[in-house]
Amino acid sequence: MTNRQWLLASYPQGPASLETWTLQDAPMPEPGPGQILVRTRWLSLDPYMRGRISPAGNYTKGVGVGEVMQGGGVGEVVASRHPDWKAGDLAEAMTFGWREFAVLTPDMPGSAKVNRVDPDLAPPQATLSWLGMTGLTAYVGVLEIGRPRPGDTMVVSAASGAVGQIAGQIGKLCGARVIAIAGSDDKLDWCRKIGFDETINYKTSNDLAGALASLAPGGVNVFFDNTGGPIHDAVMRNLAVAARVVICGRIALADNFEQDDIGLRASSRLIVTRAMVQGLVVFDWWHKRDEAFARLAAWHRSGQLTTREDILDGFERVPEAFLRMMNGRNFGKQLVRVA
Amino acid sequence: MTNRQWLLASYPQGPASLETWTLQDAPMPEPGPGQILVRTRWLSLDPYMRGRISPAGNYTKGVGVGEVMQGGGVGEVVASRHPDWKAGDLAEAMTFGWREFAVLTPDMPGSAKVNRVDPDLAPPQATLSWLGMTGLTAYVGVLEIGRPRPGDTMVVSAASGAVGQIAGQIGKLCGARVIAIAGSDDKLDWCRKIGFDETINYKTSNDLAGALASLAPGGVNVFFDNTGGPIHDAVMRNLAVAARVVICGRIALADNFEQDDIGLRASSRLIVTRAMVQGLVVFDWWHKRDEAFARLAAWHRSGQLTTREDILDGFERVPEAFLRMMNGRNFGKQLVRVA
Repeated sequence: MTNRQWLLASYPQGPASLETWTLQDAPMPEPGPGQILVRTRWLSLDPYMRGRISPAGNYTKGVGVGEVMQGGGVGEVVASRHPDWKAGDLAEAMTFGWREFAVLTPDMPGSAKVNRVDPDLAPPQATLSWLGMTGLTAYVGVLEIGRPRPGDTMVVSAASGAVGQIAGQIGKLCGARVIAIAGSDDKLDWCRKIGFDETINYKTSNDLAGALASLAPGGVNVFFDNTGGPIHDAVMRNLAVAARVVICGRIALADNFEQDDIGLRASSRLIVTRAMVQGLVVFDWWHKRDEAFARLAAWHRSGQLTTREDILDGFERVPEAFLRMMNGRNFGKQLVRVA
Repeated sequence: MTNRQWLLASYPQGPASLETWTLQDAPMPEPGPGQILVRTRWLSLDPYMRGRISPAGNYTKGVGVGEVMQGGGVGEVVASRHPDWKAGDLAEAMTFGWREFAVLTPDMPGSAKVNRVDPDLAPPQATLSWLGMTGLTAYVGVLEIGRPRPGDTMVVSAASGAVGQIAGQIGKLCGARVIAIAGSDDKLDWCRKIGFDETINYKTSNDLAGALASLAPGGVNVFFDNTGGPIHDAVMRNLAVAARVVICGRIALADNFEQDDIGLRASSRLIVTRAMVQGLVVFDWWHKRDEAFARLAAWHRSGQLTTREDILDGFERVPEAFLRMMNGRNFGKQLVRVA
C-alpha cells in the first residue's frame, strides 16, 4: 500500500502552475513512539502557502525543492502510538502536508501541535476555516489590532475570502459599518447577504479611492487588508484620524517576492491621520485560540456568523485548488476533500 | 510705533523662497479684556510650518495668502489686561506668528494656551526646543510609540535635528543602541559626542539599506523617522520582528503636497516582521506636557540630555531661518533671536 504525496518540483518564477508540484508514490509511513498515523480527509489552501514555496526570507521556513508541500489538514487516526489518541479519532494540524497519510507528533509546541477535532461541534473541516487558523486570524486581527468601535467605518479587502468574510462579520458585531471590497458581483452580493453594508467591485471600479471617499465621507476607521497593492493604496488615501490598519495579507502581489513592491508611501497620510498600521501573523496569537474558538462557535450557533467554503474533491486536485485560491476564483475558504 | 510682520505672499510651488513672504508695517495692536500684548524675543522654525503654507489638507488649518505667518515664539509681556499676567512676564505660545508684537489670549485650550516661562529653569528659548513642543514630540514619540527596551537597536533619521537629537538621547536612556542618520559628518560627529552609538551619512552612503544591515544585523527594533522618503525605505527594509516605527516627520518630501509620494510599500515587510507603524502629531499628546517637561528638565540638569540650537539674529532673517531649516543647513533646533 502506497502513500501519494505532492512534492515541490521547483520554486515558481511568478505564479505557481500545475507543474510546480509532482505527484509521487511513497511507502506508507509508520508512527514511532508518541506518534500517530492519520489518513488525510481535508486539506486547507491558504495564501500564506505561496510564501512557503519561495526562496525569499519569510517569517518561517519554507518547503525545499523535492520536499512534500506544506499545508494544514484534518484526518482520521488509523494507527496510534500515543496514549491519548486512538484509531478513529479526528485530528487537525498545520503539519499534514499534501499527502494521503501522514505521521504526526501530537505533543508539539505552539502551532505545530495536533488538535483534537470534535465532530459534534461543527463539521470537521471547520477546524481548517472559521473554527481554525482562518477564524483566529480574523478574530485577533479585528479585535486585537483593528479594534472597531460602534459607529466606525471598517473596510475589508478580499471581503468574501476565508479571512475577510469572518473579519467583516466580527466588525459588524462590534457595531461598525462594513464596506466590502472584492472582485466579482456574485461575491459582493453574498457579502451583502451576510450583513456587510456597502460593497465595491475593484475590478469594475474606475476610481477605487473616489468610490471609498463617497461611501466613507468621514474616513475609514479600520482597514482589514488582505490584498496589499493598489487596493491598499486606495484605502490608505481615505483613512480617518486615529485609524487602525491590519496588514493581514498581500494576495495582490503574492507571486512577487524578488522585486520591490512600489506604490504609495503611507508616511504623509499617517502623520495627518495619526493612524496605526500593524502586520499580523496568526502564530503570534496562538494563546488566543481557546477564546477565539469559543466565541466563533457561539456566533456560528446563534446565526451571527455565516461562512462559506469552496470545496474541490480529490487528492489529485490539490494543486488546482491552490491555483484557484491564488487567482481569486475561489468563493469562500478553499478546501480539498481528499477522501 | 509700528509692528513689523511677515505675511504669506503666495503658496510656494515646490520649495519656499524669500519671496514666499513679504514684510509689512502694521499698526501696533492693543490687547482686549483677558488678553496680553507681548514683544517677541524668539521665534521657532519647525518643519510642520511648511504644511501650514500649502493649500493641501492637513491636520490643522493653514495660513491664508495675505495672513501673518504662523509660528511659535517666546516674548515679554509689555501690556496686560489679564489678571494673572503683568508687564515683564515671559510668555511662550504656538500663536505668536511672525511679528514683533502680538496680542495673545492666555486662557485658550490645548495647544493654543499661553504658557508662563520660568527663566530660572532654563534659558527662555528652551521652551521652543527641548523644554517645549520639540521636546514633547521626542518624548512621546519614543516613550509612547517607539517604546525602546534595553538591548534594542533604534534608528533616528535627521538625528542631529531638533527632535532627533532628543529622541536619540531618550533612546539611550532606555538602554537602546542608537544609530544616527544625518547629512553631514559634522552633525554625525556631534551625535557621537552626545552618546549615539553608530552613525550613517546618508549623503555619502551608496547603499543605505546595506549600511544599516551591517550596523544592525539583528534588525531595527525602533525607528524614529523624521524624514520619510528613501531613508525611510532603507530603514523599513531592516526592521526586526515586532519593530515599532514612529512617523514623526517627512522633511525629505516637505515641499511635495500635491504629488503622490511613491516608494516602497511597507505591507510585505510589516507582515514578515509584524511591525507597527504609527503617525505622531504632538498635539494629541498635550496632556503629557507636565510629565515630559519635568523629566526633560531633570535629564538636562543631570547632564543626561545635551541639546544644540542654531540661532540667527534679527526679525528680518526669519524667512532665511525657515529656508535654512527646510534645507537641512541648520545644526540643531532652528531659532531666530528677534530682539
